[in-house]
Amino acid sequence: MNYHKINEIPVKVHGRTIKDACPLPIFWSRSGIEANIRGGELWVDIEVGCDYQEPWFVTEINGAFISRQMLLKGRHKVCLFRNLNPGELRNVKFYKDNQMVAGEAALYTVIHGVETDGTFEPVEDKKLKIEFVGDSITSGEGTYGSFKEIDWRTMFHSSSRQYASYIERALDVESRVISHGGWGVYTGWDNDIRSNIPSIYEKVCGLAAGEENEKLGAKEQYDFSEWQPDAIIVNLCTNDNSAFDQPAFDVPGEGPCKLRRNEDRSFVTEDIEKIKNAITDFLKVLRKNNPKAHILWAYGMLGSEMNLPICDAINRYVKETKDNNVAFLNLPDTTAETVGSFGHPGMFSQEAAAEVLTDYLSKRFDMKINGYKGNI
Amino acid sequence: MNYHKINEIPVKVHGRTIKDACPLPIFWSRSGIEANIRGGELWVDIEVGCDYQEPWFVTEINGAFISRQMLLKGRHKVCLFRNLNPGELRNVKFYKDNQMVAGEAALYTVIHGVETDGTFEPVEDKKLKIEFVGDSITSGEGTYGSFKEIDWRTMFHSSSRQYASYIERALDVESRVISHGGWGVYTGWDNDIRSNIPSIYEKVCGLAAGEENEKLGAKEQYDFSEWQPDAIIVNLCTNDNSAFDQPAFDVPGEGPCKLRRNEDRSFVTEDIEKIKNAITDFLKVLRKNNPKAHILWAYGMLGSEMNLPICDAINRYVKETKDNNVAFLNLPDTTAETVGSFGHPGMFSQEAAAEVLTDYLSKRFDMKINGYKGNI
Amino acid sequence: MNYHKINEIPVKVHGRTIKDACPLPIFWSRSGIEANIRGGELWVDIEVGCDYQEPWFVTEINGAFISRQMLLKGRHKVCLFRNLNPGELRNVKFYKDNQMVAGEAALYTVIHGVETDGTFEPVEDKKLKIEFVGDSITSGEGTYGSFKEIDWRTMFHSSSRQYASYIERALDVESRVISHGGWGVYTGWDNDIRSNIPSIYEKVCGLAAGEENEKLGAKEQYDFSEWQPDAIIVNLCTNDNSAFDQPAFDVPGEGPCKLRRNEDRSFVTEDIEKIKNAITDFLKVLRKNNPKAHILWAYGMLGSEMNLPICDAINRYVKETKDNNVAFLNLPDTTAETVGSFGHPGMFSQEAAAEVLTDYLSKRFDMKINGYKGNI
Amino acid sequence: MNYHKINEIPVKVHGRTIKDACPLPIFWSRSGIEANIRGGELWVDIEVGCDYQEPWFVTEINGAFISRQMLLKGRHKVCLFRNLNPGELRNVKFYKDNQMVAGEAALYTVIHGVETDGTFEPVEDKKLKIEFVGDSITSGEGTYGSFKEIDWRTMFHSSSRQYASYIERALDVESRVISHGGWGVYTGWDNDIRSNIPSIYEKVCGLAAGEENEKLGAKEQYDFSEWQPDAIIVNLCTNDNSAFDQPAFDVPGEGPCKLRRNEDRSFVTEDIEKIKNAITDFLKVLRKNNPKAHILWAYGMLGSEMNLPICDAINRYVKETKDNNVAFLNLPDTTAETVGSFGHPGMFSQEAAAEVLTDYLSKRFDMKINGYKGNI
Repeated sequence: MNYHKINEIPVKVHGRTIKDACPLPIFWSRSGIEANIRGGELWVDIEVGCDYQEPWFVTEINGAFISRQMLLKGRHKVCLFRNLNPGELRNVKFYKDNQMVAGEAALYTVIHGVETDGTFEPVEDKKLKIEFVGDSITSGEGTYGSFKEIDWRTMFHSSSRQYASYIERALDVESRVISHGGWGVYTGWDNDIRSNIPSIYEKVCGLAAGEENEKLGAKEQYDFSEWQPDAIIVNLCTNDNSAFDQPAFDVPGEGPCKLRRNEDRSFVTEDIEKIKNAITDFLKVLRKNNPKAHILWAYGMLGSEMNLPICDAINRYVKETKDNNVAFLNLPDTTAETVGSFGHPGMFSQEAAAEVLTDYLSKRFDMKINGYKGNI
Repeated sequence: MNYHKINEIPVKVHGRTIKDACPLPIFWSRSGIEANIRGGELWVDIEVGCDYQEPWFVTEINGAFISRQMLLKGRHKVCLFRNLNPGELRNVKFYKDNQMVAGEAALYTVIHGVETDGTFEPVEDKKLKIEFVGDSITSGEGTYGSFKEIDWRTMFHSSSRQYASYIERALDVESRVISHGGWGVYTGWDNDIRSNIPSIYEKVCGLAAGEENEKLGAKEQYDFSEWQPDAIIVNLCTNDNSAFDQPAFDVPGEGPCKLRRNEDRSFVTEDIEKIKNAITDFLKVLRKNNPKAHILWAYGMLGSEMNLPICDAINRYVKETKDNNVAFLNLPDTTAETVGSFGHPGMFSQEAAAEVLTDYLSKRFDMKINGYKGNI
Repeated sequence: MNYHKINEIPVKVHGRTIKDACPLPIFWSRSGIEANIRGGELWVDIEVGCDYQEPWFVTEINGAFISRQMLLKGRHKVCLFRNLNPGELRNVKFYKDNQMVAGEAALYTVIHGVETDGTFEPVEDKKLKIEFVGDSITSGEGTYGSFKEIDWRTMFHSSSRQYASYIERALDVESRVISHGGWGVYTGWDNDIRSNIPSIYEKVCGLAAGEENEKLGAKEQYDFSEWQPDAIIVNLCTNDNSAFDQPAFDVPGEGPCKLRRNEDRSFVTEDIEKIKNAITDFLKVLRKNNPKAHILWAYGMLGSEMNLPICDAINRYVKETKDNNVAFLNLPDTTAETVGSFGHPGMFSQEAAAEVLTDYLSKRFDMKINGYKGNI
Repeated sequence: MNYHKINEIPVKVHGRTIKDACPLPIFWSRSGIEANIRGGELWVDIEVGCDYQEPWFVTEINGAFISRQMLLKGRHKVCLFRNLNPGELRNVKFYKDNQMVAGEAALYTVIHGVETDGTFEPVEDKKLKIEFVGDSITSGEGTYGSFKEIDWRTMFHSSSRQYASYIERALDVESRVISHGGWGVYTGWDNDIRSNIPSIYEKVCGLAAGEENEKLGAKEQYDFSEWQPDAIIVNLCTNDNSAFDQPAFDVPGEGPCKLRRNEDRSFVTEDIEKIKNAITDFLKVLRKNNPKAHILWAYGMLGSEMNLPICDAINRYVKETKDNNVAFLNLPDTTAETVGSFGHPGMFSQEAAAEVLTDYLSKRFDMKINGYKGNI
């Protein structure tokens, strides 16, 4: 058995983080490591800081889900497998299932290294890279747990049952996720306008709290050149939509914030304009940093009331910038049969959304769909 | 936080084991504990002995899958949840996902107790109890892992994706599993005639190896009176079938054993008679110990070549005993689309079998089927 | 057996036509008659004029599909059923499966009466009325026939396998269809700008050709007051989109017409504006005639490239009119697995679209979904 | 347009009938003609005799369902298509959808010829031939019509939505159907022991009534050499099972007949023996006439109570004859979701059964499954 520092082996790092760092910070959901390893045993040397909620990690071997477990505070050697046939080459993926939780200062995760009897072979890049930007839906909130659950906790959130996971399997692509529950493009679900994804999009993990994450580089400007996506799927506005039905939020330094409806339940023009402007501005930010990516605003898993305002903002962006490499698409709404925990899309709703996106991407990028469903 | 010995709290114990023992031995797959607990935090004090393969444990909360993890050798405090709303009543299930592995002397698992801030409420018995008796199919071999996997390891075996799991959810029943991969009703897949389920059926866990399991009571006669099933689903004969195509096995004290085919690939009469007799005898054993259970031989997920011999044996049993509370049913064969790892039925094959059994049981016992599929 | 003139019995007339006319003209697809009849035998006295293509008719009994047949030129007595239990009350529907074919002057269909041994009971209106406006997709082109078929013929077009049919069953509503293959909101697929639905929307059946249809009232202004829909589903723009990739069409009196793309394949602004204006204008026409209907533009079964222009036009309409009772929704794109004949959405694509619309309508109008799928 | 006598063109005749006869009698369900024709128009010259119930005919073009219509008494020219592209080669199938109705003396159907502008190309035999023998399930009773229907009428019976139809598409095979509703292997559902399929199996169509059918050859010995099936699927015993719960039937010349249950609802030995003997005898008849066919008894779509008696009889047959080319398989039971009209399996139940049989046959005969489902 040999110990390898994480930056001394040819593992592929998933998720936005600090390149070549050791220990390797694991910020966003679906972040972690992937290795092609010929050996019978593999352990990961991982360190967790947390206070209120723990990170959850998923292990996949040869593309199939094997394990999902809570990692407690402290430094651990987590065994991914033992006593498998040592001569076999295996693809192993170990990633954080849940989103970075904004506001939990004590929460951080780093991987120091791995221990194995095996040898590493390179993990090649996939032909297509996709960035998923979103809110609780993209953070897979509700994908684990009974529909009775109402606690907002990492154990019920996942990326293993979120659409990115199904799309990766169906199209053999790689993905990154930038998302946080309750956040919007202009405002959070509760009218807290600080909870908007654009404000943190250009940092490595701008919504991570606490000194430890800051030390790990979360607040640094992200170097977009290291991983240029071919497509960016933005699923935002569900929370901006909710804010119209929530009370005002007293934002420090701003005073009470509130998106308002007219008496006929239509949006107050001045307020919907704020969202539209935020969308247009965010598209510019996305384009600046991802010059070649096809940008798809894919929305509608918890109602489609924002279809028209979103498209208005996209149309303005296109008109202003002449950038036509942007599109809009509805995802299927969640039904009584597909709802998961916490009133959120369950695994079958995520799978339905993944089918729509898989079809869209396969046509746009001329890719073949893998239909095998034996084990996932 | 309070510590409770496992036999001092009103948890429901799943799986055949020693009643009221502390520590509580966990032998068979799907064995473990279920609690109704009002509290925000729950830890399990568990001890594992192992050498070659580890046990894997699943946590379900309010009926939904939450976690699946390998437990390493040693005594651990496993956290099932923390910082959930403490006033909420939750149903929590923590069970061994994989089968007892015959032949691994070092392997045992016991639960000593739990630690929690909560209080316990009784877990009521379900209206219907079902015992599943079988081989690798019933042990859920192949239900995790890529179809590429060929290692026979606990990590790829499960009861969480096996038909009992789906049936429990669909019909709100409770189940126990008595099964081992490779074993048959007369002989194992490799013509080792010692690998037969009837020989160990009347012990608590007669196929468990090693001193530790013996000390824990595995070899004791099982007291069938403590949990009388309403139905017994027997899925055996797939390995007896395989043995016809395998070389002879030199069984100590018996010499070479081999089931043979005629030139036209039909079974040699003398050999198929051994299986038929084993079936008839096993039915008598099942009936003796479970006087009121409906016994259903449910077979066919890896070919149906044994349909006629199985039915012949059942018919002989019925004729001899006048016991008509026994039936036969085919389960759907595994296809290229539903095969899992290790050439075995994958999760969708198990789900298809569960649908057939759910329909059968719902009609026989006049039960309503729960069709919700949001998260499982 | 008694003969009844069609306007002397309490049958429900489906589809836009001349109220109380005898003979009753059958113009649009899904048009025909529905009766609640207590009797054992029912014949329809129907007259068909045609030259090139025949009309096809479907019979449904108690909501289930029974027959689909070509009706030849001439006057016929078509038997819907004979020798059924005469004491039973049955709901019977007999409707034209295919669209009115624009340009076929000889084509017309009228129902003169029925012959029966039974008595009629009133057919009550459904709680919800839906008007479907569209093109070949709404005309169900491609829903019958092998994917090899390339002939544009009535036999491969239907409303029995089109989404309206599935939605009627799922939500227990009634519907009308105004649609024609190849037509758009501004132009036909081939740049013939005369092939636009708005130009004929306010007539009874403005696209019907020939003297006979004119005599029957096809060109008369339609009296919208007789059937006010609760929702209008508009599925147009697929052909306007196609026109960008087709050669110019020499429209008499207009000269060559052609929608153009820029070099980067984006739409020439001047040309896409024509479509947007047509959409905005059409929405005004729809609203004028259907003051209370929820208008949903539901699009995307053959690509979604027009999402943004459509939404731009809708947004302009909303801004200008302050009418917020209008929305946009994507329908699922047709895949290699769901394509039907003639490169068009097959029955499973139509069913997928129907599921999305059923979900949308059930939420908006608070209706229960009927999930039974025994026979359709 | 040219007229061709039916025996002067290279059409393929489906269903047991009199070879080369003109007019061609159409007896069994799924019987009719198949042509490969290059032309734009095709009419069939068909003659129907009937009194109480009419025959229903289905047209398929290039393997896809196009039309289903009642044919009234008399001689008709039925148009299958007109004005299609005349240069295209099309496969056209025109077959009787419903079973021959035993006891209706006036009922017969013959095809005299066809009229077309086209030319014929040979229809090659498929690689696999399958004979389906059964009762109402195999006659597709219940596959059309609402679940409310209780009239036993040809309009609700079909072979177009019966499992043979789905299997033909999935495996590209050809099939024949020998079946009648209410009939059994020993007795009819009502204890009328004359209603048994074996008694008529060796005639061309032994259950056809009336002079006309006799003249047409229905009562002649069938020449099995002209179409030797590779597999025979027997789905019988559902009615024999029902007879145990029905009152006695006074059979002329036999007296009252009645299958009886014991007090515990098990079958009276003497009575179940009658069925077993009928099965064993029928297997001998099948084998005598079809020496190379794989015989599969496939049963269970309306309960599986007869599994054990059927298998007992098959085992006796195998023991006695040493013929091992016979097997047993359960088909999936009909559920509340898949039931059709008349309490019978609906189209989705038939499809589920077809999937099981398709899997079985594809494995046994090493055939590829066609998964396309665009239009059927």
